[in-house]
Amino acid sequence: KKEEEGEILERCRGFMSAPVTDISVLEKRKGDMRTRMEMLIMETQADFCKALEKVDGGTFKVDRWERKEGGGGISCVMQDGKVFEKAGVNVSVVSGYLTEEAAKQMRSRGKVLKGKDGKLPFCAMGVSSVIHPKNPHIPTVHFNYRYFEIEEEDGSKQWWFGGGTDLTPVYINKEDAFHFHNTLKEACDKHHSQYYPDFKKWCDRYFYIRHRGESRGIGGIFFDDLDSPNQEEVFKFVKSCARTVVPCYLPIVYKHLNDSFTKEEKDWQQVRRGRYVEFNLVYDRGVKFGLATPGSRIESILMSLPLTAKWEYMHKPAEGTREAEMLEALRNPKEWV
Amino acid sequence: KKEEEGEILERCRGFMSAPVTDISVLEKRKGDMRTRMEMLIMETQADFCKALEKVDGGTFKVDRWERKEGGGGISCVMQDGKVFEKAGVNVSVVSGYLTEEAAKQMRSRGKVLKGKDGKLPFCAMGVSSVIHPKNPHIPTVHFNYRYFEIEEEDGSKQWWFGGGTDLTPVYINKEDAFHFHNTLKEACDKHHSQYYPDFKKWCDRYFYIRHRGESRGIGGIFFDDLDSPNQEEVFKFVKSCARTVVPCYLPIVYKHLNDSFTKEEKDWQQVRRGRYVEFNLVYDRGVKFGLATPGSRIESILMSLPLTAKWEYMHKPAEGTREAEMLEALRNPKEWV
Repeated sequence: KKEEEGEILERCRGFMSAPVTDISVLEKRKGDMRTRMEMLIMETQADFCKALEKVDGGTFKVDRWERKEGGGGISCVMQDGKVFEKAGVNVSVVSGYLTEEAAKQMRSRGKVLKGKDGKLPFCAMGVSSVIHPKNPHIPTVHFNYRYFEIEEEDGSKQWWFGGGTDLTPVYINKEDAFHFHNTLKEACDKHHSQYYPDFKKWCDRYFYIRHRGESRGIGGIFFDDLDSPNQEEVFKFVKSCARTVVPCYLPIVYKHLNDSFTKEEKDWQQVRRGRYVEFNLVYDRGVKFGLATPGSRIESILMSLPLTAKWEYMHKPAEGTREAEMLEALRNPKEWV
Repeated sequence: KKEEEGEILERCRGFMSAPVTDISVLEKRKGDMRTRMEMLIMETQADFCKALEKVDGGTFKVDRWERKEGGGGISCVMQDGKVFEKAGVNVSVVSGYLTEEAAKQMRSRGKVLKGKDGKLPFCAMGVSSVIHPKNPHIPTVHFNYRYFEIEEEDGSKQWWFGGGTDLTPVYINKEDAFHFHNTLKEACDKHHSQYYPDFKKWCDRYFYIRHRGESRGIGGIFFDDLDSPNQEEVFKFVKSCARTVVPCYLPIVYKHLNDSFTKEEKDWQQVRRGRYVEFNLVYDRGVKFGLATPGSRIESILMSLPLTAKWEYMHKPAEGTREAEMLEALRNPKEWV
C-alpha cells in the first residue's frame, strides 16, 4: 500500500537517514526495481528501529558509511539499552564489478554469467538485522532481505531476491514459536502455497552448526536466488516478508518484557550466544563473503555478534531441564505451525 | 636429558593420565619417533599443567577420549580457577587414512604424496594449549607442538614437525615481551641462528586477523613442515621448544599475580578476547581442519575459546591510552629482543 501513496521525498522523511542513493537519482528512476527496493529496505529499517526504540526507551546510533568502490550504507545500532543488549539494523546499497571470487561462487550456484571483457557490473542492496535482548526469555531475532542485479555482456540484466527471518530463543516457548512461524506462513501463503514449507526447510538447513549437530535457533524462513514467476511478483512477496518483521517479533518482546530470570538462565543464554558466534563466524555465507571482500565495513558485518558470549568446556544440560528441551528442539527441528 | 634417563613406565607415572598408546606398545617400539614424540608431548602436558595448578591452587579436570577412526587424546581443562578463567592443555595422538581434503591441502603446501590405491595411512600427534587468565595484566598464552607421519605406496615414510608458542597480552609490557621472546630466541639459537628470526616472522604472519588488520597478539615463534637437516636434529629442536613453555610463561604469571585492575581494563580484555575468538574461528588452520573433520572432538578443539568475550560496536581506544598503545603494536609487529 505505502509504496504507491507518497512521493519519494515525502517517504524519505520517515527514514533513519537519507537513502544511500541521491534522492534526485531515485526520483529520476522511480519505476526501477533498484529504486523500489532501496525505498523498501530503508522503510523496513525505519519501521523496525522505531518499534524497537519504543519498547526499549533508548535511541539508535545512526552511522552513514561509504564504500570507495561504490555505494555505501546506513548502520543503526543500539547497545546496552534497557531491553536490548545489542540491536543492529543495517542497510547497504553497493555497486561495482563482481570480483572473480564472487562470480565463481555464483556460477557454482548454477548461474551463467557472461561479462564484457570478463567484467560484470553489479548492484546489491539489502537490509539486515540482528537483535540480542538482555532478558533470556526474549529471543534473538535475525532478518535479511536483499536484491541483486548483474549486467551481462549484451546489456541484459540478471536479477534475484533473497532473504528470510528466523528466531533464536534461549528457551522453548511453543506459543511464541507458533506466533512467529504462523505470521511468516500467512505472509508466504498470500503468494504461493509452497513458499512457507519450502523456505522453512531451507531455513533449518541453512542455519545449522554442523560441528555441533545443532540448528542455530528454531528457524523461520530463508530463500535465495528467487527470480520467478516474474520480478513484480517476487518483489511483492519480499515486501510482504519485510513488512512482517515487526508483527513477527515485537509481540514476543512485549510479552516477556517483565519476565524475571535467574543467574542460571542468564548463563544458558550466554552459552547459546557462544553458539550464535560460532555459526556466524564459521558458516554464515554473508559474513564469510564480507570478511573476504576488500573495502567492506567490518563493524557492520560483525554487528550481528552479541555484546557478550560464553564458552564453557563440556557444557551439558541435565536431563529433563528446560535447557535440555531447548537443545532437543535444536537437534531435531520441529514443525511449529 | 630426561628422555634418556628413565624407563617408559617410570616416566609415565608423572603424566596427567596414561598415554594414548598402550605402554606395552610404547615399550616395544621405544626408539621410534612416534614413541619418543608421544612421550615428549605427554611430559610437556604434565609439566605445564602442574606449573599452572601450583600458581592457581586449582586442579585440572582430565578427560580421556577416543576416536573411533583410530587413536584419541587427553584433554586437561581448568575452568574458573583463582588465576585462570580457562586453561586447556590437550594431547592428541590420532591415526588412520588421510581424507581427500587433507591430502589436497598438504599437496597445496608442496608435498608429493603417493598413496597405495589412493590410500595414505597417517599418524599425527601433538600437544596444544591456550591459557586465558582472569587478570587483564596477565597475558593469554598459546602453544602447540606436533609431529606428522605419512606412509607412502612404497612403504617409505614422510614426516615433519610443526609448532610454536605465542603471547597475547591485553596491555603492552615491554619487560614481559622481552622475557618471552628472549626465552624462545635462546632455545632457537642453540639449534640454528636463523630459526628465531624466521619463525618469529612466520608467527606474525600466521596469527593475523586480516579483516581487522591486526595481529592476534605480540607473537613468538611458529613453524610448520620442518623436516631438515634430519629427524634427530628437528626432534631436538622441538624438545627445546616444548621445554621452554614453562619458563616462557610462568614468570610472567607470578609477576602480575596480584596486580590490581579496573573495570575498564577488564572490559578491554573482553574486547581483545572477542578478537581472539575471531581469529580462531575464521582463520586458524587447526580449528578449521578440526571442525571439518568427521569424528573430531569439538570440545577439545574449541577449548581454546575464552570463557567470556565481548563485541562492542565501533570500539576505538582514545589516543594516547594504553589500549591505543596495544593496538598500535598489533597493527605494526615489533622486534622485542
